[in-house]
Amino acid sequence: MIIDCHGHYTTAPKALDDWRDRQIAALSAPGTGPKASELKISDDEIRASIETNQLRMMRERGHDLTIFSPRASFMAHHIGDFSTSSVWAGICNELCYRVAQLFPDHFIGAAMLPQSPGVDTKTCIPELERCVKDYGCVAINLNPDPSGGHWKEPPLTDRHWYPIYEKIVEYDIPAMIHVSTSCNACFHTTGAHYLNADTTAFMQCLQGDLFKDFPTLRFVIPHGGGAAPYHWGRFRGLAQELKKPLLQDHLLHNIFFDTCVYHQPGIDLLTRVIPVDNILFASEMIGAVKGIDPETGHNFDDTKRYIDIAAIDPAQRHKIYEGNARRVYPRLDAALKARGR
Amino acid sequence: MIIDCHGHYTTAPKALDDWRDRQIAALSAPGTGPKASELKISDDEIRASIETNQLRMMRERGHDLTIFSPRASFMAHHIGDFSTSSVWAGICNELCYRVAQLFPDHFIGAAMLPQSPGVDTKTCIPELERCVKDYGCVAINLNPDPSGGHWKEPPLTDRHWYPIYEKIVEYDIPAMIHVSTSCNACFHTTGAHYLNADTTAFMQCLQGDLFKDFPTLRFVIPHGGGAAPYHWGRFRGLAQELKKPLLQDHLLHNIFFDTCVYHQPGIDLLTRVIPVDNILFASEMIGAVKGIDPETGHNFDDTKRYIDIAAIDPAQRHKIYEGNARRVYPRLDAALKARGR
Repeated sequence: MIIDCHGHYTTAPKALDDWRDRQIAALSAPGTGPKASELKISDDEIRASIETNQLRMMRERGHDLTIFSPRASFMAHHIGDFSTSSVWAGICNELCYRVAQLFPDHFIGAAMLPQSPGVDTKTCIPELERCVKDYGCVAINLNPDPSGGHWKEPPLTDRHWYPIYEKIVEYDIPAMIHVSTSCNACFHTTGAHYLNADTTAFMQCLQGDLFKDFPTLRFVIPHGGGAAPYHWGRFRGLAQELKKPLLQDHLLHNIFFDTCVYHQPGIDLLTRVIPVDNILFASEMIGAVKGIDPETGHNFDDTKRYIDIAAIDPAQRHKIYEGNARRVYPRLDAALKARGR
Repeated sequence: MIIDCHGHYTTAPKALDDWRDRQIAALSAPGTGPKASELKISDDEIRASIETNQLRMMRERGHDLTIFSPRASFMAHHIGDFSTSSVWAGICNELCYRVAQLFPDHFIGAAMLPQSPGVDTKTCIPELERCVKDYGCVAINLNPDPSGGHWKEPPLTDRHWYPIYEKIVEYDIPAMIHVSTSCNACFHTTGAHYLNADTTAFMQCLQGDLFKDFPTLRFVIPHGGGAAPYHWGRFRGLAQELKKPLLQDHLLHNIFFDTCVYHQPGIDLLTRVIPVDNILFASEMIGAVKGIDPETGHNFDDTKRYIDIAAIDPAQRHKIYEGNARRVYPRLDAALKARGR
């Protein structure tokens, strides 16, 4: 099986955008916003939005299953307040659940949280519980910077985040550390903010001792870990200066990198530097980079092609494609086994 | 010759720290701060601080010359106002000049600027001029985020920065894009903020068309370009989506990456992905990572060892070690030729 651990519902029907626009427009006039129930999207519309996009490309590329979450750049936790994010997260998570219901062989949900800048993370727990219990979500996306590029929340090692960690440890689900759109003009969303957040999250974990408090907590750092694998020597050296254990002991029981690195040399570095047990197949398709690479004639984000020819053996490739995902996402493994897979 | 384009005076005598502490302590009581003339550091002290540190290691490693600038993390442009930064930059630049005078075969200066958050960049010009004309500086360090991790200045493509670009184009000197210490708890200075700034600067240039306005402007992006080379496919794809030319045409006449990447696989990726004409040898020694890599028995930052065995030919290696630096830093080349080198 080939499991893509990182897909977003970037192709949702336009009614979703329109609803969100109305919600945002109403922020200055409380009480005038649309109700969640005013959003009408039919199963046929959802089916079409998936069949002609993600599912078509999954079939072309040979992916079997995608862990599917709401569009990352649209989480936009900086907009409005907790109630804004709460209604929005509820809507987006329900849509991904409907995708998973309509295509149970191909999609399974990961939840976005109703984060809001400066708000107690306990407020995210009810939506998180609902997504796991009612929607069968196997992971969450956790935004380390709900301010959208201003980085005002404390580091991920701070107790601010512990209520979420306690809950996901209880449920035994991992968190993908994934920011949303940047509203800081310095940071292009997918070209700078995403990668910076990955690097930042990794270094925050390196500086701290979070996994002493939560030995079974698991973070997936997307986009190939930002700059971390490329600068692995730097990080090994910084860990040494900070009197931390070796990275494999300090972080690699708990941190995993996906393969959203869109060229062969990047994937080759990733598989050379990072232990194969810590690499999870992903494409983030359809996402930041949709085009065809003129150097290869294939989509930049067709990451399976890079892994297929990376210098690893079949057993290692199996781990990246399937084995590691089943281990890191035990609820995914259970859901697959329940369907005889 | 082996030219290290990225060294900072991280080992300056303690009197410098003490003076800076007094300057900072006096910020709340204007007029009570120390005068620049109160800082007393003898030539012998400078000599000792260099001979036992950078110069000793340069000799051990076989580096001939270092382009030497004030300690990056101590620029701390977020502290105080323009007058604070102005006095501080003046002191730090003078010290590097004295190093270059004492060891003219081994060090040549690059200037820090008296940047201050929100202040017109024109205010940096007098110090810049002084450093080039009086101190023979061959480059500047430009901080894209003088707020120290809050990123409140506009992107590098904004006209805010043009006064500096006009001056360095006139002088035909490059700017290394280098942030200073992070005062944002989210960002470890050397493990996150530096790398993020490199990635951010690269993406800002990719998004914009700065080099249409300044065809001869040259940026050195340190620390191996942050995440850029590892994610080169992502950036090629983003350039395509943004309807920009190919990266080699859009950016690589003007952007250069140094080799401060502290392990062999990282350097191998850099030399595989980035055209050799755009790679400049550097170690940032003595800097962020001082330790010995237990996997190799050598210093993490002994980057010459990685380049010596990278899969490039002698002519390419010569470019990385010397040829490119002479081209990117023409005032360095002129200074070397004036000394018969």
